[in-house]
Amino acid sequence: MSSDSNVKRTKLDPFGTSIIENYENLYGKEFGIQPFKPFLPKISNPAQSMRRGVIFGHRNFENVLKAMNEKKEFAVMSGIKPSGEFHLGTLMTACEVIYFQQQGGIAFYCIADVEAYEDNNLSFDESEKIALSNVTDLLTLGFDPKHGYIYRQSKEEHVKNLAIIFGRGVTLATMKAIYGERHMGLYLSALIQAGDILLPQLKEFGGPKPTVVPVGIDQDPHLRLTRDLAFKFRKKYKFISPSSTYHKLIKALDGSPKMSKRNPLSYFTLEETPEIIEKKISRAFTGGRPSEKEQRKFGANPDICPIYDLYLYQFYEKDEDVIKLRNEECMSGNLLCGECKLRLIKIVLKFVKNHQRKRLRNIDYAREILSIA
Amino acid sequence: MSSDSNVKRTKLDPFGTSIIENYENLYGKEFGIQPFKPFLPKISNPAQSMRRGVIFGHRNFENVLKAMNEKKEFAVMSGIKPSGEFHLGTLMTACEVIYFQQQGGIAFYCIADVEAYEDNNLSFDESEKIALSNVTDLLTLGFDPKHGYIYRQSKEEHVKNLAIIFGRGVTLATMKAIYGERHMGLYLSALIQAGDILLPQLKEFGGPKPTVVPVGIDQDPHLRLTRDLAFKFRKKYKFISPSSTYHKLIKALDGSPKMSKRNPLSYFTLEETPEIIEKKISRAFTGGRPSEKEQRKFGANPDICPIYDLYLYQFYEKDEDVIKLRNEECMSGNLLCGECKLRLIKIVLKFVKNHQRKRLRNIDYAREILSIA
Repeated sequence: MSSDSNVKRTKLDPFGTSIIENYENLYGKEFGIQPFKPFLPKISNPAQSMRRGVIFGHRNFENVLKAMNEKKEFAVMSGIKPSGEFHLGTLMTACEVIYFQQQGGIAFYCIADVEAYEDNNLSFDESEKIALSNVTDLLTLGFDPKHGYIYRQSKEEHVKNLAIIFGRGVTLATMKAIYGERHMGLYLSALIQAGDILLPQLKEFGGPKPTVVPVGIDQDPHLRLTRDLAFKFRKKYKFISPSSTYHKLIKALDGSPKMSKRNPLSYFTLEETPEIIEKKISRAFTGGRPSEKEQRKFGANPDICPIYDLYLYQFYEKDEDVIKLRNEECMSGNLLCGECKLRLIKIVLKFVKNHQRKRLRNIDYAREILSIA
Repeated sequence: MSSDSNVKRTKLDPFGTSIIENYENLYGKEFGIQPFKPFLPKISNPAQSMRRGVIFGHRNFENVLKAMNEKKEFAVMSGIKPSGEFHLGTLMTACEVIYFQQQGGIAFYCIADVEAYEDNNLSFDESEKIALSNVTDLLTLGFDPKHGYIYRQSKEEHVKNLAIIFGRGVTLATMKAIYGERHMGLYLSALIQAGDILLPQLKEFGGPKPTVVPVGIDQDPHLRLTRDLAFKFRKKYKFISPSSTYHKLIKALDGSPKMSKRNPLSYFTLEETPEIIEKKISRAFTGGRPSEKEQRKFGANPDICPIYDLYLYQFYEKDEDVIKLRNEECMSGNLLCGECKLRLIKIVLKFVKNHQRKRLRNIDYAREILSIA
């Protein structure tokens, strides 16, 4: 049951800090997000994040599922704000985009450099360098540009033009209700983001189609705005209301409320050295007990543990391994946090080293995609 | 002396109705507009509207005057919202742009189709037709595209990109203070207009230079916003704060507060038939007395008379003729309003017929400039 104080705590802010204590509070009337779980039996090849409940909610996913199952045209659209290297959150989104692309969707991946400027005051020259790194990661993870489109907001005229068209459909009151009192640039960036989400449905991109936007739950306000705009401009563009899936936000490594650039110990990136990643995981907060004795007796708590999250969200390939870790090792007290961290470090470093080796092959391709000389 | 109630009555609204009872109220601290008259002796070839006090105020015109007198580079920038045919107000602005172009300025003329969309819900397809008519008029009046640039906001990427850059420099409070509580599109259109005004100073257009924006006084809020943005972004772009000249707003023909599309008897356009123009002038409100007897005795009042305005603002070529009309004919009671109207009708119809004949030669050129197939 959601109390008023819980709902307050779960206020979503795409430009700030959303700390979510109970994801179930987001279901139903107040937020309008639906549980994702009921779809699982209907998806022939669910993604890891779907099977494990990391993707916990959606809006209107039935549209996209129908297209997927009937082999009809659909799109997947998401992106990254190029203000930093790939970390665990952007990695999750990228993997979700690639998953839907592999299920037959045409994939749109946006480099949100206008948002990086409006929100973080990064010039387009500065964000270009970061975008190159981001796109290289995306390609390395398996994004297929032949069945997709990677672009920068600042260079995509259709997106800017949609923002201009959508301006008439948004009152100041709506903007303030969704985003709070912000400067004009941030509101403009929200309109541009609505343009991103509806870009796949323009006639230049094949016309109206079901589109799924896989994002972290903190991005839901953009979806609400865009779904409203899709409705308001449905006559002119025949927009189908965009769908979304929401993944949970990964816990900060150091036990702080949220992964944050201001707090480098709270996360690691795919470009950091093995030594630094090892150090960050070693020092991470866990769900362990104060003493070995207590842990052996009472077990640890995976639900507050960022190390467990890393296994669950990304690094254990087999679901059985996660279940075993949770029930037979962590909660039973059989595995101590130090050992658990060492095991994770091995897996993560193997992944990162492999990724870093493979990405060298993709830098030139990324440069070409971004038209960087 | 300006009283509080006068200042209230002179609130300027570029998207609505500004009714100005006393232009002197706009001088000085409250609005920051300076009287134009002191410049007159320093201008070797002042425009008709300058000599006659129709251009009554300015911001920072000294910058442009210096460039003009020293034969240095400067720009003139103004435009039209393509929501209707050329009328007396847009005619005045166009003549001012052409005047500054003939004094050596490089001329920028913007077709504000984004504003026409945001403010009047005109689609770009609809406004394209009107823009063709507007540009044809502009060419017919003497605008020289070889020393100028005519463009549509919706197609000029530099302008849209400047709006995105400027977004970060404007708080919601500023927008509300200048424009009141409007929808997002209108705020966006204001940012785009700031982009128009500073476009001539981009390196792609030759870099920073003094720029004069000749407009009706109701457009001053855009200038205030843009001058503020020019200051905020001066480091990156080396912007010189744009200058402006302000003309008085021509009175509505029918005695209503302002010329307005909702009120077709309040104005005429350059594309209307001679019969309609004749009828509108015949029916116009004047500064005359209730009876011939009284008028012969006390004279009429040119200061409230739209017919007098037409002579003064546009249609009498010689200043002496205006002075004679005012002192020896109108105020002295020697000329009755009916005769005065007949005289004006002749002059206006001659001008309009001549203009309509000449404009046929320019339609194809206008089509080419606007890239209309």
